[in-house]
Amino acid sequence: MTRPKLLVTHPFDEAVALVPVPANAQEHGRESPRQFEGRPHAAYANMVGPFGGVTAAQALQAVLLHPERLGEPVALTINFTAALADAPFRVEAHPVRTNRSTQHWTVTLWQTDAEGVDSVMLTATAVTAVRRDTWSAVDAPMPDVAAPTEVARAPFTDRVAWVGRYDMRPVVGAIPQHWDGSEADSLTRLWLRDDPPRPLDYLSLTALADAFFPRIWRRRARMTPIGTVSMTVYFHASAAELAATGEGYLLGQARAQSFFNGYFDQSAELWNEAGHLLATTHQIVYYKE
Amino acid sequence: MTRPKLLVTHPFDEAVALVPVPANAQEHGRESPRQFEGRPHAAYANMVGPFGGVTAAQALQAVLLHPERLGEPVALTINFTAALADAPFRVEAHPVRTNRSTQHWTVTLWQTDAEGVDSVMLTATAVTAVRRDTWSAVDAPMPDVAAPTEVARAPFTDRVAWVGRYDMRPVVGAIPQHWDGSEADSLTRLWLRDDPPRPLDYLSLTALADAFFPRIWRRRARMTPIGTVSMTVYFHASAAELAATGEGYLLGQARAQSFFNGYFDQSAELWNEAGHLLATTHQIVYYKE
Repeated sequence: MTRPKLLVTHPFDEAVALVPVPANAQEHGRESPRQFEGRPHAAYANMVGPFGGVTAAQALQAVLLHPERLGEPVALTINFTAALADAPFRVEAHPVRTNRSTQHWTVTLWQTDAEGVDSVMLTATAVTAVRRDTWSAVDAPMPDVAAPTEVARAPFTDRVAWVGRYDMRPVVGAIPQHWDGSEADSLTRLWLRDDPPRPLDYLSLTALADAFFPRIWRRRARMTPIGTVSMTVYFHASAAELAATGEGYLLGQARAQSFFNGYFDQSAELWNEAGHLLATTHQIVYYKE
Repeated sequence: MTRPKLLVTHPFDEAVALVPVPANAQEHGRESPRQFEGRPHAAYANMVGPFGGVTAAQALQAVLLHPERLGEPVALTINFTAALADAPFRVEAHPVRTNRSTQHWTVTLWQTDAEGVDSVMLTATAVTAVRRDTWSAVDAPMPDVAAPTEVARAPFTDRVAWVGRYDMRPVVGAIPQHWDGSEADSLTRLWLRDDPPRPLDYLSLTALADAFFPRIWRRRARMTPIGTVSMTVYFHASAAELAATGEGYLLGQARAQSFFNGYFDQSAELWNEAGHLLATTHQIVYYKE
């Protein structure tokens, strides 16, 4: 007897289910912008506004849903201009230039307040491309760590909802247990995947790229307020590699290189269990003190 | 007898000298876009079109020249949508959101062909901010290498003009002498500065961030055609640190992490001789085979 599959929608799929704005409300033609409506999802709420990784995925979704899209994501840069309100937003994806095998996008996401005033909450650029098979190599090999089944899951002690939507198993550099100001390096390695598990795609990979806790918390054991200002994801996998990853864990590695007068950087890598480097990602983060 | 200072303009200053489009040709108001005119400079010509680093600097210059700019550059992402023609361009910088201490920008650069058709050649986003003094730390210390005066300058054997505009002194991982297809790592370390020397600023630092020869050439000793698709620079220095660097050399370090079906990444750091990490930079680059 096989167990019947429960027809429950994953909260991440609910979060990235944008609704196209009716065509008659938009300019159409070659390389025309298209608009979609969405809103932050309660399951991914953060301290202030939603988890930025899901907002980034929503911005990428506007590109993926555009009827003129060419190929798969290669690069995505998200600039977070303000914390989103818990209210609907509109997002516009614009293919500003389509070449033979590459396409360049700009994305704008805004919210409208009670007085009808629009405010830009996010801008983005993306590159999609039709990839050809070429010589390939991974020069950042996956660190040799214990398998995810051999590593304990981090207890969910956060007050924010989104952390509960990820199964995180820290191997090196967990979030400090004692906020005593003792300095350390900024390196974290952890296994992570969606909770509940969900087959990997470009959208969830984008969100996972933002799932590392702030490097300055690790570095200083001091919970200073932070906010990601700009985030870039480079995708090193086609849809086939992501599908092959399925619901498996990713090994994530993140560290900072500079903390300077209010802004620190983070560079991170995400490998699947088979050792394929699926994405490299970078961000610059505001910190208060 | 002091030697009289020659009043010769540096070619880089000529390249980034954009001309504001007259105000009456533009919308004005709070957070309004401003347009500037420029063109590629012959001293920075590349194989096809101009050296991308200078084009990136020209895009940043549009932000720096905008009368409403708040603070100094923190992040810059440039998407190169096509190779520029050797002809004038127009670049527009738009402050899409101004917060208390940060400002978010979009930039578009286009050229107009003989038939009067506009084509987008570059899009960019930037973040500028008023920085406050905070706890700071460099977690990527400068590698211990010989001083620039003890390292020989790479002979200028390139057929492209822009390479001659930089004094490059490779310490590790120079450009291959024999294009024999022998595989190696992708790491390069070199001292570099403008030639003729020029006091460092955000514009020249942006160009220097793109001055590394393609990682795949180093990796494979095979001169496959390449083109940078997207490039991000995070600035970890205020104007004061850049001014203190003056005409000194920067130590640059670059390596790739993934080469996958037509696109490889590059991550790089730039320190000044005093060991301050001035910028970290990342790009994704198309390669043919």
